[in-house]
Amino acid sequence: MTRTSQAPTQAAAAAAATLPQMANALRVLAMDAVEKAKSGHPGMPMGMADVATVLFQRFLNFDPDAPDWADRDRFVLSAGHGSMLLYGLLHLTGYPGMTAAELARFRQWDALTPGHPEYGHTPGVETTTGPLGAGIATAVGMALAEAMAAARFGTDLVDHHTYVIAGDGCLMEGISHEAISLAGHLRLGKLIVLFDDNGISIDGSVSLSCSDDQLGRFAASGWTVQRIDGHDFEAIEAAIEIARAADRPSLIACRTVIGRGAPTKAGSAGTHGAPLGEAEVAATRAALDWTAPPFTVPQAIRDAWALAAQRGKAAHRAWRQRLAAAAPAQHTAFLASQAGDLPETARQALAEIRRDFLSRRPTLASRQASQQVLIQLLPAMPTLVGGSADLTHSNLTMGKDQAPVAAGNFAGSYIHFGIREHAMVSALNGLALHGGFVPYGGTFLVFSDYCRPAIRLAALMGLRIVLVMTHDSIGLGEDGPTHQPVEHLASLRAMPNLLVFRPADAVETLEAWALALEQRRRPSVLCLSRQGLAALPRQDENRAATGLSALGAYVVRETAGPRDVTLIATGSEVGVALAAARLLEAEGHHAAVVSAPCFELFREQPEAYRRSVLGTAPRIGIEAAVEGDWARWLGDGGTFIGMTGFGASAPIDALYREFGITAEAVAAAARRLIQQP
Amino acid sequence: MTRTSQAPTQAAAAAAATLPQMANALRVLAMDAVEKAKSGHPGMPMGMADVATVLFQRFLNFDPDAPDWADRDRFVLSAGHGSMLLYGLLHLTGYPGMTAAELARFRQWDALTPGHPEYGHTPGVETTTGPLGAGIATAVGMALAEAMAAARFGTDLVDHHTYVIAGDGCLMEGISHEAISLAGHLRLGKLIVLFDDNGISIDGSVSLSCSDDQLGRFAASGWTVQRIDGHDFEAIEAAIEIARAADRPSLIACRTVIGRGAPTKAGSAGTHGAPLGEAEVAATRAALDWTAPPFTVPQAIRDAWALAAQRGKAAHRAWRQRLAAAAPAQHTAFLASQAGDLPETARQALAEIRRDFLSRRPTLASRQASQQVLIQLLPAMPTLVGGSADLTHSNLTMGKDQAPVAAGNFAGSYIHFGIREHAMVSALNGLALHGGFVPYGGTFLVFSDYCRPAIRLAALMGLRIVLVMTHDSIGLGEDGPTHQPVEHLASLRAMPNLLVFRPADAVETLEAWALALEQRRRPSVLCLSRQGLAALPRQDENRAATGLSALGAYVVRETAGPRDVTLIATGSEVGVALAAARLLEAEGHHAAVVSAPCFELFREQPEAYRRSVLGTAPRIGIEAAVEGDWARWLGDGGTFIGMTGFGASAPIDALYREFGITAEAVAAAARRLIQQP
Repeated sequence: MTRTSQAPTQAAAAAAATLPQMANALRVLAMDAVEKAKSGHPGMPMGMADVATVLFQRFLNFDPDAPDWADRDRFVLSAGHGSMLLYGLLHLTGYPGMTAAELARFRQWDALTPGHPEYGHTPGVETTTGPLGAGIATAVGMALAEAMAAARFGTDLVDHHTYVIAGDGCLMEGISHEAISLAGHLRLGKLIVLFDDNGISIDGSVSLSCSDDQLGRFAASGWTVQRIDGHDFEAIEAAIEIARAADRPSLIACRTVIGRGAPTKAGSAGTHGAPLGEAEVAATRAALDWTAPPFTVPQAIRDAWALAAQRGKAAHRAWRQRLAAAAPAQHTAFLASQAGDLPETARQALAEIRRDFLSRRPTLASRQASQQVLIQLLPAMPTLVGGSADLTHSNLTMGKDQAPVAAGNFAGSYIHFGIREHAMVSALNGLALHGGFVPYGGTFLVFSDYCRPAIRLAALMGLRIVLVMTHDSIGLGEDGPTHQPVEHLASLRAMPNLLVFRPADAVETLEAWALALEQRRRPSVLCLSRQGLAALPRQDENRAATGLSALGAYVVRETAGPRDVTLIATGSEVGVALAAARLLEAEGHHAAVVSAPCFELFREQPEAYRRSVLGTAPRIGIEAAVEGDWARWLGDGGTFIGMTGFGASAPIDALYREFGITAEAVAAAARRLIQQP
Repeated sequence: MTRTSQAPTQAAAAAAATLPQMANALRVLAMDAVEKAKSGHPGMPMGMADVATVLFQRFLNFDPDAPDWADRDRFVLSAGHGSMLLYGLLHLTGYPGMTAAELARFRQWDALTPGHPEYGHTPGVETTTGPLGAGIATAVGMALAEAMAAARFGTDLVDHHTYVIAGDGCLMEGISHEAISLAGHLRLGKLIVLFDDNGISIDGSVSLSCSDDQLGRFAASGWTVQRIDGHDFEAIEAAIEIARAADRPSLIACRTVIGRGAPTKAGSAGTHGAPLGEAEVAATRAALDWTAPPFTVPQAIRDAWALAAQRGKAAHRAWRQRLAAAAPAQHTAFLASQAGDLPETARQALAEIRRDFLSRRPTLASRQASQQVLIQLLPAMPTLVGGSADLTHSNLTMGKDQAPVAAGNFAGSYIHFGIREHAMVSALNGLALHGGFVPYGGTFLVFSDYCRPAIRLAALMGLRIVLVMTHDSIGLGEDGPTHQPVEHLASLRAMPNLLVFRPADAVETLEAWALALEQRRRPSVLCLSRQGLAALPRQDENRAATGLSALGAYVVRETAGPRDVTLIATGSEVGVALAAARLLEAEGHHAAVVSAPCFELFREQPEAYRRSVLGTAPRIGIEAAVEGDWARWLGDGGTFIGMTGFGASAPIDALYREFGITAEAVAAAARRLIQQP
């Protein structure tokens, strides 16, 4: 733990520039960038500049030449609106591309310096932040990943901290409760949150809306808590030392003055989200004795900042030596976990399960099929880790003898996330961002609403996480409309860069898993049934594990002659469509049936394929959900059979009957379409 | 406060049946109903039967013959899966329709006893619960409404408590943090939460996933906290007395045994969400010395339960006398606030604002137009109360000199909800459910994701709340993709029973407000622009305040001859469509322009009207958002111009240009459609 924290103190002391001067560089860069952009948030960077300076100069291990070094400390700016603090740090420590010119292009099209930090866009940004509370919750996942990786590969290869700067907003959001409660429960001792306790929110004083004793609250969740003056460099250093030594996650409440350095406006909400203005910028320069022009930092201060990066580079070199010295098997396994490729053993397992499902043709709820996949896949894929938000035996997310993760025991792979859907998906994001793991998590589909902000961030960041969302329609029965998703398929399909799967049988469930795991740059939601689903009619297929589901939609039942009608359905309603086709066939009407497990993949197919699947006959869409964007597939003459409002509490058969989602209703609609001129 | 709590203690003592016997009636009813339904949650009702019995028998003021009595105590079963506890209570206290036969139809189609309690479906159910944490957060809004109503009408007319039963799940959900923090800040002393501290969640022991010190946590948010044995009747009564006397909200952690009474299964997760089974049901009957058949309660126990209702009826009579004795103006104002009709003064104000906007034709951001509406409307509509989730000066949700609500001062009408979007909408729901108020709340549209579960409950319950969601597209500019909604219009439109407005100018903004306020049975979201919007071309209209927006969509620019193309847009993109139409006109192409401020209302119009608006020419949809369900309006030959992925950080003009949402792009698309054979 103390391996790298002593030397730099002496090194920094030898540098010409002082810590206050280094911090002022961050202040001025932030102030000037916001001024030039005519928008942004100068107050937070100016208030937290002292804390950030101590953190980066004394503690944070990072290598700007290798932003993805696996054992770097993670730094998460949960208060993402203060992005100029982060950009200033990345600039001063020499991250590639983060030039003064990029700072001057703050908030402009295609700059490395967008309004809020964006993962994948700017090297050195560990996670996208801005939606408040997201950073702290994602950081919990990173710290969990660190603990789990250390348990697997040892502290020679994995031994780093996760630091977070969070503001009042982060701590007011509900997600913060889920996150700190989970972190406290798991005793993630290497997670350290620096709370920018400036007493100001957008509307004015925090006291307008909040009276929480934040220290008391974190302590109640098992955290080590401290309170310091966030402008006292020695106090900051001492507090971080204490936090690093603690075996619990740490909160350091840093009492700061927002906009510190601005002579007139410091301490006021006016500095939060608007440029200081020309006069105040000039007055701040004078007050800070800062004579350099905008985006120029005196060499002595640059030299001092360079030391922080030097310390990290040295740590990185030492780590590479340890990696080189590691046992070959450990070395290989570590690199493979970091690379994130699907291991050959996993591919074989997926292919094997598919063959098994094809030959057995089991009638299974898709949640049960998913569990059978997990049972086989988990032993074959050591990076696969996950859990459920307290619905393990409903979501069926646990493999056979899958060992739980618990405080002090991170060798397991099953995570009891508790009744915390939002923290769960945020943690999955953190696990994926950290690297080394392919995370999954389960809840009921209807509760995707609880974690939607985190799903959005996964989609925006392009993270491979797999959401196992069961009880995917009124088919869940008696629990009623609060638990029956009707609009969730449509609302999730509306989200860019997210794959929404609704498999129709065990084989499609396997294929959805295989496809989800093959996505390196997007998250997937598996929408799974509570009720049993019969195996679809299939030719004996010699296909890859991703099967026909890889096409997004395909014909499961073709007509002998020209089609009279095409029935398109997903999930549990493919069985309804097949039954309707049989009814129609008995009357001499020729109905093709299309299973569409993933609209997004279908949209990516060549138009010719899509046309061949959809056909030219009238179309009927069937899904136990609202119509959403089905019109896209059904065309002007099409009909949709599904839900038009919320569900109800009753046994499943009564619900399908009362809501008119039956083979008979589909056949009747088909007859009307066929008989139309 | 003690007006009604003493007498019944004596009365109950005189009854033949004991409190334990009364509680056992709840246990057996719950156990038998779940057994008959073959699904449900017996554990919680059996565990909390003792607490509920004391609450109803000693404290709760209610009148089963007048479930909507304004000054009744509110009882919220936040742990909604324990619905049989509530149904048992409603049955035993004589709520209309809640017969033994309905208990026996637990979880069946159209029964009064659905799987989770549903407001509007079952008399006596104060709010729909089931999604965990929702109840406690909604109750905060009810308690806030009580305090605000008492400040307006005095404690002679308004003086009641809000009681909540919450479980571990409710307290693990993030929403609980927002709710208890807000309640503590506002010192809602008449809110009392009874925590079913049974140590069991679905996955097993709560200790699998949670180590929180709940008392410490509530205390940190300013609550009065107590811990009791939840099976000690005297302790329960004493704790509630203490809580009622406190000037802060109260938490009473009741240590209980889940499934109490079941000899083998009590205390185990197995009682949580599944029938006990025939043998255990029989053993429980024996252990409780309960010989009556299912759904039958011995008369002595019925008599004892009837006393609770008698006390409430007496309180109701006394209240009616106080109401009759109130000053006429106060009497009238109180009844008007309860009736919830739009007052004539409000109608006049809306009509006046509309005339003003029509004559001035201001170029305003729709958020600014919304503020101008609020400034005029608030003085004319005393029941209108609201606030913002710490974005007051961005959402522009505050009227002129609108007094804030604060602890100890509830006469104001502006609520600083803090950075708590989920608690805000839950509180709006509570305010609407309580009655007497028409609540509104603001945040950025993108953060509708944070409060989506509460929006869904508003839609499911049919509550009139108004959500002012500003910064409704990439048009917000530099804050970038984390703050730019692209999928939110589609995802909100997917939700049943919700009106989604996206007004195109000041007049449409006024009309959206007028329409939202006229909805008695559904919530509305106003999606408002950050950027300025020019006034649409309009004939001098002599219409009601709801204007043409009441039709959902209408032609703002008709062509002289036959249409070559119809451009359909919403909000800020109506201006883009109009500009495109002018470009096309210059080339001799005739483009009509349709503004579609509310798809839901348009769908409700007669087909002939919809056809006349949409026309038969090719159509182009324009919206700075993903396509969602636009295909429904555009037909087979249509084209959509909007977003296909997430936004970016840049000034607004750059964004519209780079994402191709411009008059030039629309005109080019129109040319292609027109020139097609």
